Amino acid sequence: MDWETVKSRLDALLEADKKAELRGALRMLNRVDVAQYLSELDTDKMLKVFRLLPTEISSDVFSYMDDDQQEKLIATIGDQEICRLVDDMFIDDAVDFLDDLPSDLVKKVLENVSPDTRRVINRFLSYPENSAGSIMTIEFCAFPGGYTVAQAMKEIRRTGLDKETINTLYILDAEGRLQGTLALRKLISADDDVPVQNLMETSFVSVGTLDDQETVAETVKKYDLLAVPVLDKEGRVVGIITADDILDVMQEEATEDIERMSALTPSDDTYMKTGVFELVKNRLPWLVLMLVASIFTGLIISHYEDKLILSAVGVALIGCIPMIMDTGGNCGQQSSTLIIRGLATGEVEPRDAVRVLWKEARVSLLVSSVLAAVCFVIQYFIFRVGTPDSRLAICLTISASMVCCVLFAKILGGLLPLGVKALKLDPALIASPMITTVADTCSLLILFALATAVLL
Amino acid sequence: MDWETVKSRLDALLEADKKAELRGALRMLNRVDVAQYLSELDTDKMLKVFRLLPTEISSDVFSYMDDDQQEKLIATIGDQEICRLVDDMFIDDAVDFLDDLPSDLVKKVLENVSPDTRRVINRFLSYPENSAGSIMTIEFCAFPGGYTVAQAMKEIRRTGLDKETINTLYILDAEGRLQGTLALRKLISADDDVPVQNLMETSFVSVGTLDDQETVAETVKKYDLLAVPVLDKEGRVVGIITADDILDVMQEEATEDIERMSALTPSDDTYMKTGVFELVKNRLPWLVLMLVASIFTGLIISHYEDKLILSAVGVALIGCIPMIMDTGGNCGQQSSTLIIRGLATGEVEPRDAVRVLWKEARVSLLVSSVLAAVCFVIQYFIFRVGTPDSRLAICLTISASMVCCVLFAKILGGLLPLGVKALKLDPALIASPMITTVADTCSLLILFALATAVLL
Repeated sequence: MDWETVKSRLDALLEADKKAELRGALRMLNRVDVAQYLSELDTDKMLKVFRLLPTEISSDVFSYMDDDQQEKLIATIGDQEICRLVDDMFIDDAVDFLDDLPSDLVKKVLENVSPDTRRVINRFLSYPENSAGSIMTIEFCAFPGGYTVAQAMKEIRRTGLDKETINTLYILDAEGRLQGTLALRKLISADDDVPVQNLMETSFVSVGTLDDQETVAETVKKYDLLAVPVLDKEGRVVGIITADDILDVMQEEATEDIERMSALTPSDDTYMKTGVFELVKNRLPWLVLMLVASIFTGLIISHYEDKLILSAVGVALIGCIPMIMDTGGNCGQQSSTLIIRGLATGEVEPRDAVRVLWKEARVSLLVSSVLAAVCFVIQYFIFRVGTPDSRLAICLTISASMVCCVLFAKILGGLLPLGVKALKLDPALIASPMITTVADTCSLLILFALATAVLL
Repeated sequence: MDWETVKSRLDALLEADKKAELRGALRMLNRVDVAQYLSELDTDKMLKVFRLLPTEISSDVFSYMDDDQQEKLIATIGDQEICRLVDDMFIDDAVDFLDDLPSDLVKKVLENVSPDTRRVINRFLSYPENSAGSIMTIEFCAFPGGYTVAQAMKEIRRTGLDKETINTLYILDAEGRLQGTLALRKLISADDDVPVQNLMETSFVSVGTLDDQETVAETVKKYDLLAVPVLDKEGRVVGIITADDILDVMQEEATEDIERMSALTPSDDTYMKTGVFELVKNRLPWLVLMLVASIFTGLIISHYEDKLILSAVGVALIGCIPMIMDTGGNCGQQSSTLIIRGLATGEVEPRDAVRVLWKEARVSLLVSSVLAAVCFVIQYFIFRVGTPDSRLAICLTISASMVCCVLFAKILGGLLPLGVKALKLDPALIASPMITTVADTCSLLILFALATAVLL
């Protein structure tokens, strides 16, 4: 059944006010889909349908709803209901939800949850934004190493239903420090009286509470984990981060990189939810910076202008400005993009500079030869620039500039991100528009310098 | 202990030829780290160390090694060893490995594995590249709905150790079609004689064998899954895809998007492993295309040239070419990047065109006013362009062109990707350099048209 059919059936039940049937129908849907259905209703209907949800799924549905709707709900429903909702949510979802809530509503929520939940939430809210601590969940299973398989199984049966993932179990020493990990599948295949520490894997991978979420994502990806334990400074397990949460982190980080590469300050929110002033603030500083840079590029033209407009050759060169600027910029951008992405995925490192230089130099020679040839053919045979006497000299000069520009732009594009990374800055910052601006300016300088020497 | 210390200790043991100790030390490491250590050795040493690995970890280590090293190993080791290695690997890892192997070695491997493995591998190799079928694994647990909890637990104990993830169990009907899913944690907390179908969740999410890996990634992300079942046309479960494999897919897809956005044909391999000719092939067609486009942009200048060089006003305008071109291009790129990313993450859709238009129009007005003011101040008070008589008119014309260019570029950048998406093409294709080229050309047209009307 496709989504439109599902929706129209639910709409019909809602319209006819058949509450029991609607509740039954909602039970059959995945909770993410229930949240999506709610997001397509107006506020009154949304509240009405939300109240109909069976209690065991309403917390889950709530955590999949978007921020605006969560806010509207919290503002409307009673204190008791808030308390139940938040107490039933996974802690990381509850913290996410509170992070985006206006402070008066946060207060209202915290006053109504159980003291245990409040204490945990407060601790989470104190971790720095985007740290492992702020995205972890505390729902995991851990046992002392001395437990037997039977004891561990009993403990899991008692508490396991609340745990976000019990695929991996964590074995602790007497001080609560992580000693090893144990796959649940190994536990359930083992004999009852074996101590769990005899089964555990000691070469486990972990992250610290203060590690950046990007580091966590890299670790999880590198070691193909479904969950990674988060340790405090003393080596005690305080939470875990599961691979499905890492998917969100990776998407966020990729978006940030892409935005920086297009000279945008990354936004905390998605495009549709970001206000006009916020968008302006994220774009304007970069544009002003590049505007000023390009005004200086213009100075190069002005500098040569007097010479250019005095001769037919010079006038022909003015028409080449866009071509030489664009090609230099585009070549630089291609190289810098590959290197920046290589740095982000860990495949390229600053110490690879010589290999990058050698590779880009060879690529540039091949690329620039073809571009120079194309450019020569168009200018000489099709546009027939300049006068018949000067045509060959002009076209050769332009093609020679083209080779120099491509070589320069590609090597600059390849090496500059490595330099920026070596300085511990984010290479994405100097991508595309930055490289383009520098490559533009230098390309014009090359063209005019060469032309002045040869032609004017 | 940091990686350098670990490495130097292993090196010392290898140097001193202390085989037993080295084997013991390698046992203490995570398998990903063992593979990394091997990758830093020359071929002879790598082979020597690989032979030392305890058999129970060598397949795992092998699947984490990079393609070149896997190839070297396979070419050197005996048929028996190949057979054991590949039989012990998870099927998805084995298929990955075979995908990158030269065909003579694939033949050698397939001749040596067990008939069962060979049949499965052959089926996998027949799924289209990047389809769900090609990245799934067949290691999962499934039971008929009539099984009791006790029967299911017994079955898991018997086979569970081989399964990649048993966090979620799959319940089948008599024809082998998926009826529902069951979390292992629910199973182990239930009473022995309950039929598993009484415990299962029927609103599960699944993907088809032929679905693109990008669709699979979106599904896993949307529903926060740790594993998704892959169904054939008849609805039978043929495999599962786990969240850790989706992390690789997401990284690949983000890299592809970023490369397309910088006018590069995405490469199958990472930068360092892509040959010079392959790099040239991925870059050159786009550069030639944009070169030709920019030559036409140059025609705009040539068209107005005669008028421009005859007056002081016109000559002043030539110096503005880089500024107006760059600003138009940069503004267009910013908007298109946000929209393309919004389309990729599913937040923006083609039907949002009017909202995007309205948003970009307001942003452009604010942004362009500031840019025009900055530009006016610099041109009028600092550079003092043109003659005293014409200065105000020139500067106002340039600033007015700036407002028009920004408005045009941002709206184009916002709407063009939506149009491309509506045509079912990849919006990333028309990003940055494409938008930049179009915006450049139009910006120059706007500047010269306005200047001709007002000044010349």
